[in-house]
Amino acid sequence: MLELTEGQYNLVYNSFSFVIAAMGAATVFFLLIRNRVAPRHRLAVTLTTLVTGIALYHYVRIFGSWESAFSFGDGVYTQDGQPFNEGYRYVDWLLTVPLLLAELVIVLKLAAGTTRSLLIRLSVASIAMIVLGYPGEIADPDSASRWVWWIAGMIPFLYILYVLFGELGRSLDRQGQTVKRLVDYLRYVLVVTWSVYPLAYLAPQFIDDAATAEVLRQVGYSVADVLAKPLFGLLVVVIALSKSRDEGYITAIDGSHAAEDTTLAEANANA
Amino acid sequence: MLELTEGQYNLVYNSFSFVIAAMGAATVFFLLIRNRVAPRHRLAVTLTTLVTGIALYHYVRIFGSWESAFSFGDGVYTQDGQPFNEGYRYVDWLLTVPLLLAELVIVLKLAAGTTRSLLIRLSVASIAMIVLGYPGEIADPDSASRWVWWIAGMIPFLYILYVLFGELGRSLDRQGQTVKRLVDYLRYVLVVTWSVYPLAYLAPQFIDDAATAEVLRQVGYSVADVLAKPLFGLLVVVIALSKSRDEGYITAIDGSHAAEDTTLAEANANA
Repeated sequence: MLELTEGQYNLVYNSFSFVIAAMGAATVFFLLIRNRVAPRHRLAVTLTTLVTGIALYHYVRIFGSWESAFSFGDGVYTQDGQPFNEGYRYVDWLLTVPLLLAELVIVLKLAAGTTRSLLIRLSVASIAMIVLGYPGEIADPDSASRWVWWIAGMIPFLYILYVLFGELGRSLDRQGQTVKRLVDYLRYVLVVTWSVYPLAYLAPQFIDDAATAEVLRQVGYSVADVLAKPLFGLLVVVIALSKSRDEGYITAIDGSHAAEDTTLAEANANA
Repeated sequence: MLELTEGQYNLVYNSFSFVIAAMGAATVFFLLIRNRVAPRHRLAVTLTTLVTGIALYHYVRIFGSWESAFSFGDGVYTQDGQPFNEGYRYVDWLLTVPLLLAELVIVLKLAAGTTRSLLIRLSVASIAMIVLGYPGEIADPDSASRWVWWIAGMIPFLYILYVLFGELGRSLDRQGQTVKRLVDYLRYVLVVTWSVYPLAYLAPQFIDDAATAEVLRQVGYSVADVLAKPLFGLLVVVIALSKSRDEGYITAIDGSHAAEDTTLAEANANA
């Protein structure tokens, strides 16, 4: 039975609470900034709002599951309650990972055929990655099956990176300089933050002390989720704003944007 | 007394949580996309928002009922708490099934007489289907009455399919090609997902192991609800967007839409 010191327990507990606050704040921010973006780019902002909203829900559940899994006595937290439900993370990823890849593809406004093909392949690959990861996640820490499922999940993971850096790279020629730079930065953020997940997954493999491994895994996933969702979404919003500016929806001088109650044609005529 | 392994219990538990997240995200998405659709098609989007909102409420209740029905001990979950309330599903369907059939009829903008006749007959048939199904659902798994009510409920079910594929098919001639293709796809989604319900209903009839039957039934209903509500609603929204585009409310070039407070005619005149 897992025993955590007060410090270890609280580190995880406060990480979860931090993620709840970050996801909640990001959701409200994305809702509020949405109308600042040109209508044709709002779908991407809507999707990132859903991503952080869904994650907010799951972290509230994860927090509750963590609380009811442990009891405090003799200065230590003992995991003797309901089993901690690792499933919430996987259900969350099943919904949010395809959505966050979709928001990146959609904000780029590529040709319709390219968009459809990218959306389908990235969704299938990300669902495969998550479904293949789960059996290993709930397997015994010492079992070889943890490694087997880790390798199985890494195949679609590498395919996603190949699509984002290979294929998507070639589609970026039509984008403006600022957008190209932002997408480069965004892909860099993605590859760094996504690398935290497979590392956190393997914590029980490399760290003999079960308590330390569990703390590292939970804190690792939490930090990665904040970077991969609110920060990633913020960059998508910056791309959408930059495009809205380039397209004349937001004017450079006063930062105002075409009024809600005039058509774009009128706004351009007035400008 | 029903005993579930940790894996079986969690599969149902995480399915319910998945549906909560999916319904919540769908509700927010439909609320946000509503203004993108021409005012004359917004009622259909409003109805699908109600459908996923009502389902969100019921799944929160179902989740809570599932939690309080079981207790954990000796590594297994035993159903020794409050009886699990199957009624939530039926109350949910009583409200949502007529609404989701109505959103399909309304988005097509058929002749007023046809619309009224379809709405009345589809509502009556769907309510009959659900009311007739319930007595069998709560009957003893081994009793013949489960079969009797199943057959009784299948009659209005088949009538609904007859109306959607026969009568509604003949009304589609006035629709554009894209809309026709979308409606075909939507009816296909409907018939496939709706078939899951009568199959999940019969799980206790065909599977001797009570625990497996219960897990299959709950997961089956959950998956079917996600396909029949958020996915079905998404297709209705796509039809509404496609019509808004065809009618000139969303212009193809800039993706902007006519102003909220001007009529479509004015917006076109100004453009």
